Amino acid sequence: MARINDNYLKLKAGYLFPEIGRRVTAFSNANPDAKIIRMGIGDVTEPLPPAIIEAMHKAVDEMAKRETFRGYGPEQGYAFLRDAIAKNEYAARNCEVHADEIFVSDGSKCDTGNILDILAPGKENVIAVGDPVYPVYVDTNVMAGHTGQSNAKGEYEGIVYLPMTAENGFKASLPTRKVDVIYLCFPNNPTGAVIDRGALTEWVLYAKENDAIILYDAAYEAYISVDDIPHSIYEIPGAREVAIEFRSCSKNAGFTGTRCAWTVVPKALMGTNEKGEKVELHKLWMRRHTTKFNGVPYIIQRGAEAIYSDQGKQQVADLIAFYMQNAAIIRSTFTSLGMEVYGGIHAPYVWVKTPSAPGSSNRIDSWGMFDKMLRECHVVITPGSGFGASGEGYFRVSAFNSRANVEEAMQRIRTKFQ
Amino acid sequence: MARINDNYLKLKAGYLFPEIGRRVTAFSNANPDAKIIRMGIGDVTEPLPPAIIEAMHKAVDEMAKRETFRGYGPEQGYAFLRDAIAKNEYAARNCEVHADEIFVSDGSKCDTGNILDILAPGKENVIAVGDPVYPVYVDTNVMAGHTGQSNAKGEYEGIVYLPMTAENGFKASLPTRKVDVIYLCFPNNPTGAVIDRGALTEWVLYAKENDAIILYDAAYEAYISVDDIPHSIYEIPGAREVAIEFRSCSKNAGFTGTRCAWTVVPKALMGTNEKGEKVELHKLWMRRHTTKFNGVPYIIQRGAEAIYSDQGKQQVADLIAFYMQNAAIIRSTFTSLGMEVYGGIHAPYVWVKTPSAPGSSNRIDSWGMFDKMLRECHVVITPGSGFGASGEGYFRVSAFNSRANVEEAMQRIRTKFQ
Repeated sequence: MARINDNYLKLKAGYLFPEIGRRVTAFSNANPDAKIIRMGIGDVTEPLPPAIIEAMHKAVDEMAKRETFRGYGPEQGYAFLRDAIAKNEYAARNCEVHADEIFVSDGSKCDTGNILDILAPGKENVIAVGDPVYPVYVDTNVMAGHTGQSNAKGEYEGIVYLPMTAENGFKASLPTRKVDVIYLCFPNNPTGAVIDRGALTEWVLYAKENDAIILYDAAYEAYISVDDIPHSIYEIPGAREVAIEFRSCSKNAGFTGTRCAWTVVPKALMGTNEKGEKVELHKLWMRRHTTKFNGVPYIIQRGAEAIYSDQGKQQVADLIAFYMQNAAIIRSTFTSLGMEVYGGIHAPYVWVKTPSAPGSSNRIDSWGMFDKMLRECHVVITPGSGFGASGEGYFRVSAFNSRANVEEAMQRIRTKFQ
Repeated sequence: MARINDNYLKLKAGYLFPEIGRRVTAFSNANPDAKIIRMGIGDVTEPLPPAIIEAMHKAVDEMAKRETFRGYGPEQGYAFLRDAIAKNEYAARNCEVHADEIFVSDGSKCDTGNILDILAPGKENVIAVGDPVYPVYVDTNVMAGHTGQSNAKGEYEGIVYLPMTAENGFKASLPTRKVDVIYLCFPNNPTGAVIDRGALTEWVLYAKENDAIILYDAAYEAYISVDDIPHSIYEIPGAREVAIEFRSCSKNAGFTGTRCAWTVVPKALMGTNEKGEKVELHKLWMRRHTTKFNGVPYIIQRGAEAIYSDQGKQQVADLIAFYMQNAAIIRSTFTSLGMEVYGGIHAPYVWVKTPSAPGSSNRIDSWGMFDKMLRECHVVITPGSGFGASGEGYFRVSAFNSRANVEEAMQRIRTKFQ
């Protein structure tokens, strides 16, 4: 009988968001009149900007006429989009990233998983992730056979976890053992923390000294609100030789259901083969991308291009400002209740330390806080422990919502937690 | 230094279509006035049907309003599309395929490669492919480490090649050694051959007896023009226990640049783990699909749904009839020139045996025919040998083109080959 990939059986069943869904459904069934406000999953709520809508209508019309119809496009993405990205996202920030180093794709979630295809199978590379962490980084490494089994804390053997807590300012500290592949996500999901130039430079130097690769997920860079925080790792000298960057249109232009992203694999980035020879990762990813992917829909690429029109830029900026006003309301609510509040300044996520249980000096744990918020406020948050052991004692509140929902949720929370 | 996946280095550099592109560009540069007609790659040319255009405009408008905006959808695809597929593609043919066994994706090319993620890495499964074969099946197995190196004929060690030639009626004969995973593609790319119920039943029985899995690619099923040829492998009793089916909107509704497809993984289909226990492949693919994919754009899924409206069905049928009239013109041209012609009756590909070289009894080889057609007729065809050793001595002509181009190309060919 055909043999399956046994690594899948190492995956823990209770993926965070399905478990949240299960508890919310159970509560909702038991309390059908409760008006539940969801501030858990990081999904945008506001419509696509008009410039993008207009561009997509135009592209749909092009598909209706023989003269302008488009069949297979280049798997890496159309030049019109890659050029717009190279110019607006990289040249504008003095980053050396060429259009042919940009691979347009249908999502950063997909790419952060798929990138493992071009790295050695098995346990030859030591993988480091932040803790708490976006679960996909870990799960895809488990699937690829890069780990052993998980322990009672949910940590997988072989993965190096880099704690990010209030105690270290939510900086992922440099690993104490040599690692080969490092996932960094800034602005961070889930903590909302950012990394400054100095700290990111340390990571680039670490990677150079240790011949490691940084997988840099900057899906939330549009939320950075001051000048001295890097939007791209390629703002750091030398990063072209050590880093792959993942970027997305999901959280800036609202493409979570529209699907467009890109990955940068610089030509200067090398790995080694079994003989110890250097191999360009760009060539391997090009082969992977052209063999196992067929490009993003033409209509969607035209929508993504419109992000970079003058109108598109202004409309996307307005969207981000709207969500960041939500974040400010959330921050001030929890701050006013005396809780310790992080994130939410350069990121659409607010990361809050759980309060003490009533009449106790012990903090409520993450799932306890989740249940309490659901039961007492009918508000869904995300328990920090779902992102990793170091997330225990925290919870994440998403700023992606309508203003009315945010205000009502905060009002309920103020009433119950005062 | 981070270690790469050495399996990628086994891949031969000269992938078929890039090599064709290189030769066409060189010819075109040397002959700038030549009006080249491309009948090589299997890309559609006619605009999307009006019902699909209308549905996508409507969906774009929904994305412009907060009340109807869609963020993340279910990774497996929206129920409206999976239900439409289950009803129209499977229930209508008395196939037992449930909506929750259908996984909507962005392409069959992607899925035929990605499916290997859930199968054992390394060489535990013996893989069988037709010869000639769609190159992606082979290349993705090489990348996944399921093969050894390639030989001078371009065959990879460890893969079982099943010749499909005029001598065996283009049927992939049952393998003489036990295999675990079998790729079948009918109507076939590149030969245009079909498989009847009897022959497909033999394959299902083989798979049952040998505990093998069939990966059934039916991307061209819409071109089947008679009743007794199965459109889906699930028309064969017992196929639910042995087969995964790949289907696409690319070649029926013209979605090559619009991107929508689906894969069926029946819940009755099992593989074995390292302990020899049975494991549902459906569960593994669900985990893969939800972890490494984020769904097809909402707008595109609404376009795909419109394929199943009354108008959509008629418009898609008209599209297929148009391309099949092209195929008939191509068939009759080469037949009238005395060449041996296959395919093109239930498939948009005509598969032709190369003629003898002038003044010789030896046939021209595939690339020789490619060069001759390009040089003398300014027509691009696909050399059969590019699809595998058993494709040597054949060439593929695609019926995807405008009527004017097909007629002009055939006129040139008649003139030169008479």
